[in-house]
Amino acid sequence: MSENEESCDVAVLGAGFAGLAAAVAIADACKAGAKPCKVVVLEARERVGGRVYTTTLADGTWVDLGGQWLGAGQERLAHWLARYRIATYPTWTKGDNVLLWQGQRTRYRGTIPKLPLTALLGVAWAQLRLDRMAKQVPLEAPWQARKAAEWDAQSFGSWLANNVGSEQARQLLSIGMETVFAEHANNYSLLHALFYIHSGKNTDTLLGSEGGAQETRVRGGMQRLAEAMAQGLDVRLERPVRRVQWSADGAVVHCDGLTVKAARVILTLPPPLCSEVAFEPPLPPSRQALHQGMPMGAAGKCVAIYDEPFWRKAGLSGMCVSDEGPCHVTFDSSPPEGKPGVLLGFVEADGARELGKQTESERQKSVLACFAKYFGDQALTPRIYVDKLWEHDPWARGCYGAFCPPGLLLAHGPALRQPTGPLHFAGTETATVWSGYIDGALSSGERAAREVLGHLSPRPSG
Amino acid sequence: MSENEESCDVAVLGAGFAGLAAAVAIADACKAGAKPCKVVVLEARERVGGRVYTTTLADGTWVDLGGQWLGAGQERLAHWLARYRIATYPTWTKGDNVLLWQGQRTRYRGTIPKLPLTALLGVAWAQLRLDRMAKQVPLEAPWQARKAAEWDAQSFGSWLANNVGSEQARQLLSIGMETVFAEHANNYSLLHALFYIHSGKNTDTLLGSEGGAQETRVRGGMQRLAEAMAQGLDVRLERPVRRVQWSADGAVVHCDGLTVKAARVILTLPPPLCSEVAFEPPLPPSRQALHQGMPMGAAGKCVAIYDEPFWRKAGLSGMCVSDEGPCHVTFDSSPPEGKPGVLLGFVEADGARELGKQTESERQKSVLACFAKYFGDQALTPRIYVDKLWEHDPWARGCYGAFCPPGLLLAHGPALRQPTGPLHFAGTETATVWSGYIDGALSSGERAAREVLGHLSPRPSG
Repeated sequence: MSENEESCDVAVLGAGFAGLAAAVAIADACKAGAKPCKVVVLEARERVGGRVYTTTLADGTWVDLGGQWLGAGQERLAHWLARYRIATYPTWTKGDNVLLWQGQRTRYRGTIPKLPLTALLGVAWAQLRLDRMAKQVPLEAPWQARKAAEWDAQSFGSWLANNVGSEQARQLLSIGMETVFAEHANNYSLLHALFYIHSGKNTDTLLGSEGGAQETRVRGGMQRLAEAMAQGLDVRLERPVRRVQWSADGAVVHCDGLTVKAARVILTLPPPLCSEVAFEPPLPPSRQALHQGMPMGAAGKCVAIYDEPFWRKAGLSGMCVSDEGPCHVTFDSSPPEGKPGVLLGFVEADGARELGKQTESERQKSVLACFAKYFGDQALTPRIYVDKLWEHDPWARGCYGAFCPPGLLLAHGPALRQPTGPLHFAGTETATVWSGYIDGALSSGERAAREVLGHLSPRPSG
Repeated sequence: MSENEESCDVAVLGAGFAGLAAAVAIADACKAGAKPCKVVVLEARERVGGRVYTTTLADGTWVDLGGQWLGAGQERLAHWLARYRIATYPTWTKGDNVLLWQGQRTRYRGTIPKLPLTALLGVAWAQLRLDRMAKQVPLEAPWQARKAAEWDAQSFGSWLANNVGSEQARQLLSIGMETVFAEHANNYSLLHALFYIHSGKNTDTLLGSEGGAQETRVRGGMQRLAEAMAQGLDVRLERPVRRVQWSADGAVVHCDGLTVKAARVILTLPPPLCSEVAFEPPLPPSRQALHQGMPMGAAGKCVAIYDEPFWRKAGLSGMCVSDEGPCHVTFDSSPPEGKPGVLLGFVEADGARELGKQTESERQKSVLACFAKYFGDQALTPRIYVDKLWEHDPWARGCYGAFCPPGLLLAHGPALRQPTGPLHFAGTETATVWSGYIDGALSSGERAAREVLGHLSPRPSG
């Protein structure tokens, strides 16, 4: 392997949505100011997009195996889609939803499933309380909430156990929040949960399709936006970063087969992946504490392609919520043309980890059996089955994002966005609005670009 | 840097007590069985000992800046000390202890400070309950405790808040456990705390000197044992491991400037440091979840050397417990000869992190002011002041050990000691008895050696 050496003004680590937004924003600003600047984007994978990944199957169907939704109120994602004139369409939601709960299958409309009144009231009351508490968490500094110490001392699961009387309500809320955090409610702190809820507006928005985070899809798949953004950028694929030497004057970034000197560096890796990079000198303890202490959730997408969206004929929307597994939640993920029919099931937390222990054909069998319970035996015979378990992806090590166990956000939260020497931190985990979502990744990249632009001096020619 | 290549039967990663015990045990067994085998120990630091570190100051005084005690009932450490005929002496404890609590300074004997009766009863009752619950946690498999799910759902801090009525009792228990875990009670799970207590016998043992974990010292410092163990081993210093390629047939370990092929590998790095090594192929998700999810505590030792142990003349033991900082707990850490006088103060968790933000002279000033509050103004003028904040050490990234936030031990505990292909896991975090202590590190190395010896076939000559 030959060690090529290059130099640039800004090295962006990671060509996910945070890195791409940062690189485009810097290029835009330099162009507008007629300041020449060289931005190099270093990406470990053989593609751009990060935790967004669209693939085309043997039959020509495109499938989003990573982030796929434009949510209501996600301004930054809407902005970037508009900039590149990428067309969208509403998520398929017509028809009755299915609830499979304690062995009983019922149909319902809207967001309120048919459950005993005590359970429904329990859920509604808990959502009300959570939304109220969430509003008290400052998005720029969750650790400054008046009750931050109390809320960060307990897990979200502890709060549910101590505050929600109905077991069914607790279970429904656990499953709901598991679809948001991709981790068991016991593992993340109440403070982080409240921040996350506020960051995405409220619990209804996080959990909903119409008017919520799952409202709109991208024609052809979300990765199209990443590819459009990457056009014209200097993106180097298959260059995992192994070591970053830094000082007040700049940094040297060592990738496999390439060394890049840069005046400023934007790191977009999620915190646990930052631990896989050797920093010389070491980063401050508070920053390291985030790398050590914020694990990724575990999530996978299981997708079956059918000639037709057969559930629609039965008046079903393709959406299901269930206390059985492996997929607790499903969506109709079909393309806008209406054909083929695409069913999408999510596996999360322990359910994802269990499924990950199976072979591909075992996974297919158990997921299709699950789809059949929800939508009938036609679900057993798709054209194609495909899945992606993100905790097996070495450049993600989990999904959707990294979360804070109790105690961490209060003690080390301020280090999330705190630049260190020439190093700036982006990535959806650093976002204040829609943290954990594509929208948050984009705004974090734009924010890091602003930080860097404040420091850039015109590059001496040569 | 020239890339040397070597091959061996067993590569041991880390020359701390786990790695040294593993390497010696394998060498012993091979010698006993007349099986030739080559063991190479790869160490990132320029010394052996890991989180045990003895240094000699300008005046000739030796000081333990890392692990320093042989506790009551620590059989494995006693065994290894005896094997190398390393002399010990009792920790200096004669005299009254000091309690500085809510601004009031009192003296007391033994382990029970002078506090209001409700606080003392609250502490005693909590210890009784914790010890009882701890006994129900199986040391080999904490996740199989009957109440494992309930106990792992909450932080130790949540349990204190919900179960200990007296605020002073809660505070005293928090400070006590902070000296054990080097982390705030909100950050680690009740299940992990209970396992840890059982692993070290009970709460009194963990917190005590006489009859407890802080009973005995090593003449000349604990690192002497590490150096004795390293004699005759093939230890390569300053060889940080960057990448491990592995398959069913063996592994290739890439260090700075050296590549070692090995049939078996023993990794003794604490879980968060394992994330800094690139594994190809990636390790299973459950193992990765431990690397991502078990952060290190933060702890530092602050040491002042005086011509005489002046506190003894005042009838004081040098031990103090206080709700003020930066050092909440102090010990007389003098050598057996009685001179000079060595005061040792611990900083832990947020206290350690705060101190770590100061310059060396600021740290000295605040620690000595703290010692003076406890033992009088003579404490202000030591011969020498020295400290070590372990979270600033790039090859420890914290101390004393890695802990489990809520939810982690239950979900991923079984991966702690589960070998993966040719890779075996040791280190005090994997120990069942005295986990988190030197004794646990030693037994974990011996256990990993037994695993590896079961797999080793005689090496073909050449």
